[in-house]
Amino acid sequence: MISRTIRILGIDPGLRRTGWGVIDVEGNRLIFVGCGTVLSRENLPLSERLLAIHEGLVRVVSEHRPLEAAVEQTFVNKDGAGTLKLGQARGVAMLVPAMSGISVAEYAPNLVKKTVVGAGHADKNQIQVMLKILLPKAAPPTPDAADALAIAITHAHHRQSAMLMRKVAGA
Amino acid sequence: MISRTIRILGIDPGLRRTGWGVIDVEGNRLIFVGCGTVLSRENLPLSERLLAIHEGLVRVVSEHRPLEAAVEQTFVNKDGAGTLKLGQARGVAMLVPAMSGISVAEYAPNLVKKTVVGAGHADKNQIQVMLKILLPKAAPPTPDAADALAIAITHAHHRQSAMLMRKVAGA
Repeated sequence: MISRTIRILGIDPGLRRTGWGVIDVEGNRLIFVGCGTVLSRENLPLSERLLAIHEGLVRVVSEHRPLEAAVEQTFVNKDGAGTLKLGQARGVAMLVPAMSGISVAEYAPNLVKKTVVGAGHADKNQIQVMLKILLPKAAPPTPDAADALAIAITHAHHRQSAMLMRKVAGA
Repeated sequence: MISRTIRILGIDPGLRRTGWGVIDVEGNRLIFVGCGTVLSRENLPLSERLLAIHEGLVRVVSEHRPLEAAVEQTFVNKDGAGTLKLGQARGVAMLVPAMSGISVAEYAPNLVKKTVVGAGHADKNQIQVMLKILLPKAAPPTPDAADALAIAITHAHHRQSAMLMRKVAGA
């Protein structure tokens, strides 16, 4: 059986900092490809900040050419202004892969933690430790880039589970 | 004095329905150019809904080639999920003009009402009535398209005020 390489882009959107991480999945193997952070300057008008996020992610997509993408589901909190800012960044972040015909999956934050660390209430440090084990070559420059890699790993895991379930159902 | 025509795009973003309205400003004259609504189907994945908004607004920008754009400022309410949805649509809506190098101004909802109707707490009906007077040829198909035209008128008014103030200051 030839296992096809699936390249996955994980995105952790934010108006100030948007993390991204790219991994390849070959069967059960995860291979680190790249990660980073797209910044938008706070003193720019909102439309130009959104444009900076767009341009940064367009560069990532055109350089790495992922086949699938994933973002974390957002749970809204009491901070309405923060939710609006995140929403605007998230809209642009989800748009960029869609513009290239790439599907964008969404995963609950607890599922991301459970997939990477094994517990739904893991803290950031535990995620960093597991990332070093799962993707030894990755050195994410920011927590946002690390989160983006964790989201990509979550998608790698759950798209495999879905495949297995389809195989079992077909057996 | 030759008065340059300024074409303005107003946008009223929403995840389900995004209204748009285009007007020309020649000195004190407002000329209706076009308006409409971009729809996104609720049964599509979020990324494809955002793509539909993007593609609809890209068509509007490439057909009408506005020089300036404006959106309403959003005041966040208690409905966090609604704020997130609106934020995502708003992020895409502000991105589209920015991708064509068009500046995007933001105006408070009360300023839009005050500019179009003369009172900060006008209702939707009063805005519709004033739109018929200010832009007799406009027949907005949805309240969102009407709101988008009201936002474009607000920008037309306030960019003129700013020009007048610069002239007075220079006299």
